[in-house]
Amino acid sequence: MTTEPKPSSDRELVLTRLIDVPREKLFRCWTEPELMKQWFAPLPWTTTKAEMDVRPGGSSLIVMRSPQGEEFPNPGIVLEVVKNEKLVFTDAYTKAWEPSAKPFMTAIITFADEGGKTRYTARALHWTAEDRKTHEDMGFHQGWDQCADQLAALAARI
Amino acid sequence: MTTEPKPSSDRELVLTRLIDVPREKLFRCWTEPELMKQWFAPLPWTTTKAEMDVRPGGSSLIVMRSPQGEEFPNPGIVLEVVKNEKLVFTDAYTKAWEPSAKPFMTAIITFADEGGKTRYTARALHWTAEDRKTHEDMGFHQGWDQCADQLAALAARI
Repeated sequence: MTTEPKPSSDRELVLTRLIDVPREKLFRCWTEPELMKQWFAPLPWTTTKAEMDVRPGGSSLIVMRSPQGEEFPNPGIVLEVVKNEKLVFTDAYTKAWEPSAKPFMTAIITFADEGGKTRYTARALHWTAEDRKTHEDMGFHQGWDQCADQLAALAARI
Repeated sequence: MTTEPKPSSDRELVLTRLIDVPREKLFRCWTEPELMKQWFAPLPWTTTKAEMDVRPGGSSLIVMRSPQGEEFPNPGIVLEVVKNEKLVFTDAYTKAWEPSAKPFMTAIITFADEGGKTRYTARALHWTAEDRKTHEDMGFHQGWDQCADQLAALAARI
């Protein structure tokens, strides 16, 4: 079930879903490298590396590979962790606390109990409305939607 | 004693000093509102408000007043805290985790024991070399130097 929540500002993109798995499993899929690699990129893209030091200031590195074999590294940093509830990270730093070439977005992922299922919400906050538009044009909705399908399917079988 | 450390990049400004007070007192001056207000702005500028929620994700708000009475609010957020050792904050967010209008800098303040005194180092990391230059032209060296004088004097008498 996909709903279309209203972003709180013109700099934000949001995806939310009610997923029929416990939030602990979704949190594991978001934070354990071997699980992350199985859903993080929208197929036929793949995730060849997924490292996340799950603590404030911890580094993350996700490398996605295009169907043509080109690799795209996404270095970032974790800002906040509430186990099984919340995960916040950004590309504004490449490691603690080295500013990146271009602060693009901050992702706030939340997992909440809702009637025996999990309310999964992924918010992408950008520093400018222009960057939000760029992200939307890059295929945010389709990409994150497909990844949410992959995430839900994986979480249901672990 | 002021030394002129070499910044690690063209996006960084640094000030360091050996101050003859225990680092616990310097940390208190950096984190307790009533103390912050006494040294944070270079006189004749004053600090009319100093709030800092000293934890990762905590908000900070420093309001400085010019000699002409104009007030300049500086909202930001704390990224990392190691009590009596390290404090990191940035203006890239106005609260957790709301992107600011313009991510300008991240400040890394460290306090280290050194021969019975404290090695005090304040690094300002900018997202661009242009912003570093702007900060330098705004009077970073003179301003932070004067504030370090005020900080050392205050820490010596508390």
